[in-house]
Amino acid sequence: MKTISGGITAPAGFTASGVCAEIKKKDKKDVAIIMSQVPCTAAGVFTTNMVRAACIDINKKHLLNGQAQAIVVNSGNANACTGQQGIDDTLQMAEVTAASVNIDPSNVLVASTGVIGVFMPMDQIAKGIEAAARVLSPEGSEDAAQAIMTTDLAKKEIAVEIKLQGKSVKIGAIAKGSGMIHPNMATMLSFITTDAAISSACLQQLIRESAGISYNMVSVDRDTSTNDMALIMANGLAGNNIIDDPDSNDYKLFKEALDFINIFLAKKIARDGEGASHLIEVKVINAADEKSARLIARSITASNLTKAAVFGEDANWGRILAAAGYSSAQFDPEKVDIYLGQEKMAEGGMGLIFDEDKARRELQKEEVLITVNLNSGTSSATAWGCDLSYEYVRINASYRT
Amino acid sequence: MKTISGGITAPAGFTASGVCAEIKKKDKKDVAIIMSQVPCTAAGVFTTNMVRAACIDINKKHLLNGQAQAIVVNSGNANACTGQQGIDDTLQMAEVTAASVNIDPSNVLVASTGVIGVFMPMDQIAKGIEAAARVLSPEGSEDAAQAIMTTDLAKKEIAVEIKLQGKSVKIGAIAKGSGMIHPNMATMLSFITTDAAISSACLQQLIRESAGISYNMVSVDRDTSTNDMALIMANGLAGNNIIDDPDSNDYKLFKEALDFINIFLAKKIARDGEGASHLIEVKVINAADEKSARLIARSITASNLTKAAVFGEDANWGRILAAAGYSSAQFDPEKVDIYLGQEKMAEGGMGLIFDEDKARRELQKEEVLITVNLNSGTSSATAWGCDLSYEYVRINASYRT
Repeated sequence: MKTISGGITAPAGFTASGVCAEIKKKDKKDVAIIMSQVPCTAAGVFTTNMVRAACIDINKKHLLNGQAQAIVVNSGNANACTGQQGIDDTLQMAEVTAASVNIDPSNVLVASTGVIGVFMPMDQIAKGIEAAARVLSPEGSEDAAQAIMTTDLAKKEIAVEIKLQGKSVKIGAIAKGSGMIHPNMATMLSFITTDAAISSACLQQLIRESAGISYNMVSVDRDTSTNDMALIMANGLAGNNIIDDPDSNDYKLFKEALDFINIFLAKKIARDGEGASHLIEVKVINAADEKSARLIARSITASNLTKAAVFGEDANWGRILAAAGYSSAQFDPEKVDIYLGQEKMAEGGMGLIFDEDKARRELQKEEVLITVNLNSGTSSATAWGCDLSYEYVRINASYRT
Repeated sequence: MKTISGGITAPAGFTASGVCAEIKKKDKKDVAIIMSQVPCTAAGVFTTNMVRAACIDINKKHLLNGQAQAIVVNSGNANACTGQQGIDDTLQMAEVTAASVNIDPSNVLVASTGVIGVFMPMDQIAKGIEAAARVLSPEGSEDAAQAIMTTDLAKKEIAVEIKLQGKSVKIGAIAKGSGMIHPNMATMLSFITTDAAISSACLQQLIRESAGISYNMVSVDRDTSTNDMALIMANGLAGNNIIDDPDSNDYKLFKEALDFINIFLAKKIARDGEGASHLIEVKVINAADEKSARLIARSITASNLTKAAVFGEDANWGRILAAAGYSSAQFDPEKVDIYLGQEKMAEGGMGLIFDEDKARRELQKEEVLITVNLNSGTSSATAWGCDLSYEYVRINASYRT
């Protein structure tokens, strides 16, 4: 596997674009299209929030046949909590896109991110979609990556190349997040393209498994959004033997590459949490089962007290152990060892005398690594988050007004 | 029911005291005893954190016979994550108390709050217990209330009097919290005394039900502590006919008074969340069932985004609806109305044009009331929390060092 340039348009047969429809501001791109020259196998994973934007339900419907050819995205307006008008507007986005690129509306997937509860400026958006369709380009990944950003500080884009039985296969992706900091303006969106040939069933399994260990292990905030989704389109133009067996070596190799891409983007999302000064990585090892490991890792990354302690560079292992304790996972606290970087802070559930200076240096790193060894089995899980800062409060206290 | 003075020593036959054993600082009280002149029916509810201080397990054991006569409490050290030494020290606290007041150690309940993972200074604590036993007084409630404080800004104390079939019955209580802001220094503790005669089974049911709608509906932080508990002792000296039937009128009257006390203290704990400038009360009404109402109310009070929006006086109903959406409760978002004070902000899951000035005035009140009408049934629940401020981050970023 090697990292390559080109982002979402690196795989063969994909074009993309991003234009300014003035939904956000003058001069900020806010409408993107990602397009394959041939129909794709497609799959997605979606927010579990009961309060969902219309695009979530419409995409699930459009994906029932496991096929899609284009994705249209706008930023600046989430089109959530907008009732029947919201449904009509989402369908219109699919229709305008379909007409502009000459495909069927049911082969278009739609994503929106931005303010909740405000109707879409459909005239602008329709014009934006038509403009974006006109400038679709095999070098369009960066424009698309910019057009889906809201409060993100940096665009999130990656591509890799792997060999499957001698054939070059490429996977590209763009994402936006600022984590789930703002459900009003920070839906987690990820769009993945590949020129691999993959069966619909395998693609659905791949995105579900891979999102489970990447996007679903990120907590910037504990809040989940109305519009979160990850979509993948596979157009088969790499000419590989179709991946249709989850036990095959090709599946395994493709999954490794997809996991690499999704974990890369998930960490970028966590690190880009607004106001964050550190990425926090929590590894839970030697758990009795994977579910417990996941629950504990996520509970620690989501703990305000742990997040604030990292912001304050305070090696407070008691907060880490307490957060594990209320995760709802079963474990024996008296077997737990806790490490900050390489420095062991607690053993058998009790504190050790550790080097405060070494611990502080670990906390001053941009990536802070916390390892929790449960000494109870062989399962493990990793979660990512960021610290809780003054800046988080400032941004979120004054967001809407 | 009328509110009376005297706190935990208002009920007949109870004495209390609080002294300085220099566990926290010179001149700060940190050891308290609450004592009944006769053995009591006793019951308690305890933290569900897997990581528990020794006192939790020892109290459960001491309460197996439904009886106790004294409670000993120290602040400044939680005696959690301290292994066998912690168990030995808790048992020694019970023994020293028992010897000092001439009762059996199994009739002593123990509570500790403070730093995690540090061994108890048992010489000081033993001397403190002996000193506290010497100054037990029917006017000792305030001293005890002060001795259990850690980061609390204000002591929390209340007492009420009710009539049961003509007999005067009193209930008193003290509590400490600063919510669950610091698991290291902010265990939620509540101690309740009453001179009512109540059966052991009824007392256990009363404290469980009452804690369920008071302390368990408070979120300052989502973190729960290693040492949380609420204990109640009933000595029967009021001479009322014993309350031994949950369907009786006396049970109902007693429960109303107990709920009043526990909700009063729960709100004080929420309001005293460090850095908090507002108490947030969330009422969920017309839910399909009580469980859904509770889940949604707690999800909203625990949402960092809602908390930060209240701090910033931003009438952000989208965050409230999104927090309801990820609560795991089932409901129809398109039936939901949301009110800030008396001001309706959303109807049928969609935003209304509301008066921003009126909304801001509601958010400037010390008690901010959010009502979520699910229009789906007849159940309801109320939860309390506080806003998320710069001060919260400052305190928690620099707590241990």
